[in-house]
Amino acid sequence: MVYKYEPKDMQFKHLGRTGLKVSVFSYGGWLTVGGTVKGDPVKDLIKTALDHGVNFFDNAEIYANGQSEIEMGRVFKELEVDRDQLVVSTKVFFGTGKTDPNQKGLSRKHIIEGVRASLKRLQLDYVDIVFAHRPDVATPMEEIVRGFNFLLDHGLTYYWGTSEWTAQQIQEAIGIADRLGLVGPVVEQPQYSIFHREKFEVEYKPLWDHYGYGSTIWSPLAGGELSGKYLNGIPENSRYKTNPDFYQDKIKELESPEGKKRQDRIRKLGDISKRLGGGDGPAALALAWAATSPHVSSVILGATKPEQLEENFQALKLLDKITPEIRKEIDELFENAPQQLPTYGRA
Amino acid sequence: MVYKYEPKDMQFKHLGRTGLKVSVFSYGGWLTVGGTVKGDPVKDLIKTALDHGVNFFDNAEIYANGQSEIEMGRVFKELEVDRDQLVVSTKVFFGTGKTDPNQKGLSRKHIIEGVRASLKRLQLDYVDIVFAHRPDVATPMEEIVRGFNFLLDHGLTYYWGTSEWTAQQIQEAIGIADRLGLVGPVVEQPQYSIFHREKFEVEYKPLWDHYGYGSTIWSPLAGGELSGKYLNGIPENSRYKTNPDFYQDKIKELESPEGKKRQDRIRKLGDISKRLGGGDGPAALALAWAATSPHVSSVILGATKPEQLEENFQALKLLDKITPEIRKEIDELFENAPQQLPTYGRA
Amino acid sequence: MVYKYEPKDMQFKHLGRTGLKVSVFSYGGWLTVGGTVKGDPVKDLIKTALDHGVNFFDNAEIYANGQSEIEMGRVFKELEVDRDQLVVSTKVFFGTGKTDPNQKGLSRKHIIEGVRASLKRLQLDYVDIVFAHRPDVATPMEEIVRGFNFLLDHGLTYYWGTSEWTAQQIQEAIGIADRLGLVGPVVEQPQYSIFHREKFEVEYKPLWDHYGYGSTIWSPLAGGELSGKYLNGIPENSRYKTNPDFYQDKIKELESPEGKKRQDRIRKLGDISKRLGGGDGPAALALAWAATSPHVSSVILGATKPEQLEENFQALKLLDKITPEIRKEIDELFENAPQQLPTYGRA
Amino acid sequence: MVYKYEPKDMQFKHLGRTGLKVSVFSYGGWLTVGGTVKGDPVKDLIKTALDHGVNFFDNAEIYANGQSEIEMGRVFKELEVDRDQLVVSTKVFFGTGKTDPNQKGLSRKHIIEGVRASLKRLQLDYVDIVFAHRPDVATPMEEIVRGFNFLLDHGLTYYWGTSEWTAQQIQEAIGIADRLGLVGPVVEQPQYSIFHREKFEVEYKPLWDHYGYGSTIWSPLAGGELSGKYLNGIPENSRYKTNPDFYQDKIKELESPEGKKRQDRIRKLGDISKRLGGGDGPAALALAWAATSPHVSSVILGATKPEQLEENFQALKLLDKITPEIRKEIDELFENAPQQLPTYGRA
Repeated sequence: MVYKYEPKDMQFKHLGRTGLKVSVFSYGGWLTVGGTVKGDPVKDLIKTALDHGVNFFDNAEIYANGQSEIEMGRVFKELEVDRDQLVVSTKVFFGTGKTDPNQKGLSRKHIIEGVRASLKRLQLDYVDIVFAHRPDVATPMEEIVRGFNFLLDHGLTYYWGTSEWTAQQIQEAIGIADRLGLVGPVVEQPQYSIFHREKFEVEYKPLWDHYGYGSTIWSPLAGGELSGKYLNGIPENSRYKTNPDFYQDKIKELESPEGKKRQDRIRKLGDISKRLGGGDGPAALALAWAATSPHVSSVILGATKPEQLEENFQALKLLDKITPEIRKEIDELFENAPQQLPTYGRA
Repeated sequence: MVYKYEPKDMQFKHLGRTGLKVSVFSYGGWLTVGGTVKGDPVKDLIKTALDHGVNFFDNAEIYANGQSEIEMGRVFKELEVDRDQLVVSTKVFFGTGKTDPNQKGLSRKHIIEGVRASLKRLQLDYVDIVFAHRPDVATPMEEIVRGFNFLLDHGLTYYWGTSEWTAQQIQEAIGIADRLGLVGPVVEQPQYSIFHREKFEVEYKPLWDHYGYGSTIWSPLAGGELSGKYLNGIPENSRYKTNPDFYQDKIKELESPEGKKRQDRIRKLGDISKRLGGGDGPAALALAWAATSPHVSSVILGATKPEQLEENFQALKLLDKITPEIRKEIDELFENAPQQLPTYGRA
Repeated sequence: MVYKYEPKDMQFKHLGRTGLKVSVFSYGGWLTVGGTVKGDPVKDLIKTALDHGVNFFDNAEIYANGQSEIEMGRVFKELEVDRDQLVVSTKVFFGTGKTDPNQKGLSRKHIIEGVRASLKRLQLDYVDIVFAHRPDVATPMEEIVRGFNFLLDHGLTYYWGTSEWTAQQIQEAIGIADRLGLVGPVVEQPQYSIFHREKFEVEYKPLWDHYGYGSTIWSPLAGGELSGKYLNGIPENSRYKTNPDFYQDKIKELESPEGKKRQDRIRKLGDISKRLGGGDGPAALALAWAATSPHVSSVILGATKPEQLEENFQALKLLDKITPEIRKEIDELFENAPQQLPTYGRA
Repeated sequence: MVYKYEPKDMQFKHLGRTGLKVSVFSYGGWLTVGGTVKGDPVKDLIKTALDHGVNFFDNAEIYANGQSEIEMGRVFKELEVDRDQLVVSTKVFFGTGKTDPNQKGLSRKHIIEGVRASLKRLQLDYVDIVFAHRPDVATPMEEIVRGFNFLLDHGLTYYWGTSEWTAQQIQEAIGIADRLGLVGPVVEQPQYSIFHREKFEVEYKPLWDHYGYGSTIWSPLAGGELSGKYLNGIPENSRYKTNPDFYQDKIKELESPEGKKRQDRIRKLGDISKRLGGGDGPAALALAWAATSPHVSSVILGATKPEQLEENFQALKLLDKITPEIRKEIDELFENAPQQLPTYGRA
């Protein structure tokens, strides 16, 4: 089949300050594709995402040790999606589970070899974005910056970014790229949700302000907790129930007074979501809250079933309803809006 | 057939300050090729142009949504013109009519993917010039400059230029290219004719003066008006006659006292043209006037029939007759020579 | 006396993106100081300005052929204002009326010699800002950029700017400074008022957007017209009355139907001003409108009498009342909000 | 008198990677000089410091609103210390308490004017180091870097540094300086003590590792607590006793179980100190611990009496005794050695 992509009700944002546009919700292969989900179900998931206007698909060499890329690449091929309409990313750093000392990290060798191997698995000539999946303190930053510029110069990617770097590390890469007339990183892939705000909102602030750095965020539902999964205690058939010893700390935390207060807040978030038209549960609001942050370019969804994705796309209805007042209401509900660094009267 | 190209009486100019030479008259696919004109008539037009020594053929991804490139490419193939003798351009920005947010603009992605798609349609490995068909205010200029340099580095084009940019935007691109040791744009494709002089002669002046910026101009006959088309009123079978409601403003303008004065001037332009040996009608002089401007590299013709082209080539006879006195006569006839910016006694 | 400066109710803005702060209203010597106003009256004017928190004083070598600087410098000395609290500017280009070919323009020679002479007249070691009073098309831009950087390097000024340059010229200077690792201009001194919006709002837009270019605007009352001066016809004792032949065009314009409509609009502007608490006449609103534009750093006032300045400072009361709705009301009243350049769907 | 400086038993370290050597203990005017301590006692303190080989004296424009510089400058003059033997610093940012908007921050204007004013108060032609006392988020980093380089170029200081900046901010300044071929900051003045390790040891780590950034640390005794001041409860005549309402939080904290545990640890630190030969109390060890950190260039002491300084200099005896084993013992005693950022198997 030749898949006919139509953006429909999806919204798009620039990836940071670049000319590339990404759908505010995207689909990522982490923890699911190529691992627990294989074959036709992957196609169903990707078709569901495309049907809702998702154009950005996120991957990494390490996801399911390369199987995630293999599955996604196969599906793009089978669907015959127009390559130009897709924004595909991968990430290099962790390798694909091999023990060889050179098949990981951000050496010039692994940046190039790693991405070449990813492209082969994806059956693509290039990706749109390559992320450095982690900082590599054992490789000089200049080597890293030059490695990614090699990818750009050779047409293996159009943009490059970082994932879980510190602001200092990103700043170092930008400074070196500027000095050498090379292209710096333009986007970070950090964790961000109502429960993880500090690093994103405070440490990264100068990068948003000075460089218009973009972000494609992961875990917008805080590992599922913000979908309301534990509102009625630990569900049967859940990982926690079937493996209580392994998860005993997590279980204890959930059952503590603090854990209960947390669930109570999530329940109230669900009330606001319903009030705004987000359907049952807090997920739609939690996702729309993240997607409408001025510093978020795209929110990566990681569903294992099309129904789950459909549910997540309820958030599209709320995008235009996240007013400053709603953001304030959520700040007050969770009491965790991070404090900005002092400006000593110079703000 | 193997077409044997012989420049004959054509004159050639450098494309701005580059080493490339373009025929002072060129042929463009805008509004015609791939749209109203398809198949053999395209071949006839291109053969007529080649026969007169035209070596520069202008195109764009958006012209007839890609069909213009397909037609021209096919004809070059059929005529077996020596590729090295041709100067072929295309333009990237508007895409080919798709709704996807990334299939237009001047992002790194669309510059590269758009030109790759154009080359495929043209059945060429490279073009000689790629124009940014419009400025893209949503993409950083550095990304744009780097995108076009990618094309150069990969042999997909030899030169790059701008179309309908402001002087400030062109200057910004030049400054960034200079700073980064990259190649800046070298040519603008603006509208220019006796009726549209201001932007070309005043706003672009520093670009002609400081950088020897080239220009390949469009609409040298001001949408046909300078061919004398309305000298005897609106002709039967013309767009205006068959669709009077749609064109009512234009019709009213033509029939106003100002419109009549305008036609009167065009008639007098025809008299001068005849006096100089340009045959009937003002077209030859209007074209020669444009072609001999020191800042025009090539005048793009857009005929739909070979006869029309033949008529236009009458202008070749006048090229050596456009003396400063003739230019002054035309200035006085139309009373629209633009005033240069003040130089406060420093010119 | 040692003047004790206290900012009081004045508001301050950064000069563009720089760290320097200027009062939103400033006092300039153009047309008045050193010419029609000399001696103690200058002191009264400057004291009145300082009393209202003005910290920025604008000058130029050409103002009253150097006498403006002499008067201002003398007053600063007499008042013993703390130099660090003042922001003093001058402008170089027109010289001081001498006929020598090197005592004007923006040659390296005149930039340095002109500013040295200004400093002598001002009795200062340095100014805070030097403006290139006009572009100099007869001097290479690189020489100009280097000339102003000489001033910076030698501590003769802290910042440099442009006045009445085109966006292309400013962009050229910025690009050259960037390439050479030098400091580019950071501020333009253009005409700007409700009656002169086009160049400021359209041509300069990319400079505001890309570089946070600052502006210190002149003629915010459009030569006094926006103070309501002609609301009741041409006043007795005015320049127009005493010299009707010289000003006949201006007088005719005022008495035309269009001129009357214009006065009518100014009258209505006065009504809005009164409604907002700006006192009688439209001046306070016209000034507050300019001062609150996000791209205006400071509005230069040019009063000849302390009372006039006092009246102008009524605008301070309106600064916080210029809502988007008020701006819209003014747009609709004057019907002259300029149209931005097309963005071809990429805004 | 002409003071004859002899380094004696003092140890010296390079200021980061620079060629400048600073005594590992230095004397700073913060909170004391020019405020509670004036006149002859300042001379006694400085003489005591000099007698022990201290060559580095730290100041700031804001310390006692400029009085600290005045006092120190006077004493250097009176003692006729050889200027070349002294390393004098000051800091610019907070001004000297004036309300003017330009007499603070890190604008080019205030960097230059502020330091010029400091030099005047210090009666010096130059200082050795100027610190940016805080980051200025309202001034572009390039302006800041250029401002400090102006000081270097004009011989007003030999080095420049930062104080309480984030690693990202320092990295940004270094990147800009490198790109422009200018001199970047070389030293940070942060808080550091056994009780404040996190930012110094973790956030700044890449700066120590990549750039050999230096540090002149303040509050090495954590506001006096590490001198053992509260080991026997709150002392009579202390600030806490005489003003219990104001300090009630601090008092409550000291009397809490956690506070008591903290004092207990400090007592044990004193035991180790005595064992090593550091005399009574933990101060000598706390100071030696800081001074021997590989990333500390100098430990700033802030005594108000010569006796206090003498006591602090006991630490000199311990410098060679801070073995890795001792550091480990202290880590285990306070259980607060910060965790480094993960290196994902790449360390």
